[in-house]
Amino acid sequence: MRHARIRDPAGTVRSGSYDDGVVTAAGEAFDTARDDVDLLAPCEPSKIVCVGRNYADHAEELGNEVPDRPLLFLKPPNAVADPQSTVTLPAGKERVDHEAEIAFVIGEQARNVAADEAMEYVTGFTCLNDVSNRDDQNREQNWVRGKAFDGSAPIGPCVADPEHVPDDAAVELRVNGETRQSSSRDFFMFSIPDLVEEITTYLTLEPGDVVATGTPAGVAPLSDGDRVEVEVEGVGVLEHDVRQG
Amino acid sequence: MRHARIRDPAGTVRSGSYDDGVVTAAGEAFDTARDDVDLLAPCEPSKIVCVGRNYADHAEELGNEVPDRPLLFLKPPNAVADPQSTVTLPAGKERVDHEAEIAFVIGEQARNVAADEAMEYVTGFTCLNDVSNRDDQNREQNWVRGKAFDGSAPIGPCVADPEHVPDDAAVELRVNGETRQSSSRDFFMFSIPDLVEEITTYLTLEPGDVVATGTPAGVAPLSDGDRVEVEVEGVGVLEHDVRQG
Repeated sequence: MRHARIRDPAGTVRSGSYDDGVVTAAGEAFDTARDDVDLLAPCEPSKIVCVGRNYADHAEELGNEVPDRPLLFLKPPNAVADPQSTVTLPAGKERVDHEAEIAFVIGEQARNVAADEAMEYVTGFTCLNDVSNRDDQNREQNWVRGKAFDGSAPIGPCVADPEHVPDDAAVELRVNGETRQSSSRDFFMFSIPDLVEEITTYLTLEPGDVVATGTPAGVAPLSDGDRVEVEVEGVGVLEHDVRQG
Repeated sequence: MRHARIRDPAGTVRSGSYDDGVVTAAGEAFDTARDDVDLLAPCEPSKIVCVGRNYADHAEELGNEVPDRPLLFLKPPNAVADPQSTVTLPAGKERVDHEAEIAFVIGEQARNVAADEAMEYVTGFTCLNDVSNRDDQNREQNWVRGKAFDGSAPIGPCVADPEHVPDDAAVELRVNGETRQSSSRDFFMFSIPDLVEEITTYLTLEPGDVVATGTPAGVAPLSDGDRVEVEVEGVGVLEHDVRQG
């Protein structure tokens, strides 16, 4: 099953099954292509734990060494943006990039979880764009202005149960219909079980928390008016617009 | 007024006024020194935005340059620890330090706030210990293992309205009764209004969010069994214990 959240025409937030843009909640079907139904981020994370440089090709394109353990950073709840929304880029920056990511969502509280039990805590997968303000990222120790600004984490359109997402799931990002990033889960340096074990050694993950697994090669700047699509095999397509702040 | 949160003997979370360890909620007084009343963190932040190197003397003791703009980092909700609780230090680390901080709490949603209006968004002040795992902080780009681990942000005992906290409020930290850090708000490099303006240029602050304003000189290691007190003039004393994980 795939799960999504919507704001229905009465303004109420509802959760239900997601099938090709149609959300069925308590027996009622809502077509999210209709103007009066808003698709919302499919979960409400207390934090997003992000992994940097988890594909060797992307580490190379930025001139970074391959790390000996996962490079972690954080996006707080203000970073979450809904599918179909318009992300406002931070004002006055020269370069703000897209980063397509396969993200996974935590189903139950996870602390000190061993890798071989980690998948029991993963309720499903979603698409995430780790929107990255390079001007500030390159100037700061911790990537707060660079990676944690409002709307820097569009997620969705749904959370797909793990059985829908193959071990070698493809991830692709298109800007205005043109493919910019294309890779697969095959090329992870740190596996999802290893990430869960490493993160939960330090931080308890709560239900609804999201882990973004890093981006492959092909990151590039976004511009005012761009239409972004992030597709993860088995999940679907996260779409959002971009405007210059 | 000072505001605190408790879990009452029936297990219910209640908010009320705080006066020297006594919380009065809906006309009922609870003495937090009693075993069956637990003092809770006085707010529930969606994020804690922390400022590094905001006292010139502390930047010097760590051999760091004084930054030209605030060094920011994040602690997510899993970092929050209640007053009187026992913080478990990450296992197997050589050095985990205390860092006494004056923290302020946001009263209403703040975004793109100019410095001269910033204090309208500050509902009050509290004490915070920015517990810092130096082993990992010194090895990682973003201070996640180093600063965002479970319990790395004890806060409390209350939120004091701004009128209680003088512009030159003293901040002091004691371990087992011995003073380790002692300074005042007078020595901030970046003022609270400037911090609010800088942070809200990038991140929306929500009601209950906390900004930790940095630590003065005197940071030092914590050990199993230590009793820590952080005192901010006009707020009170945050106490917590430490155990080795």
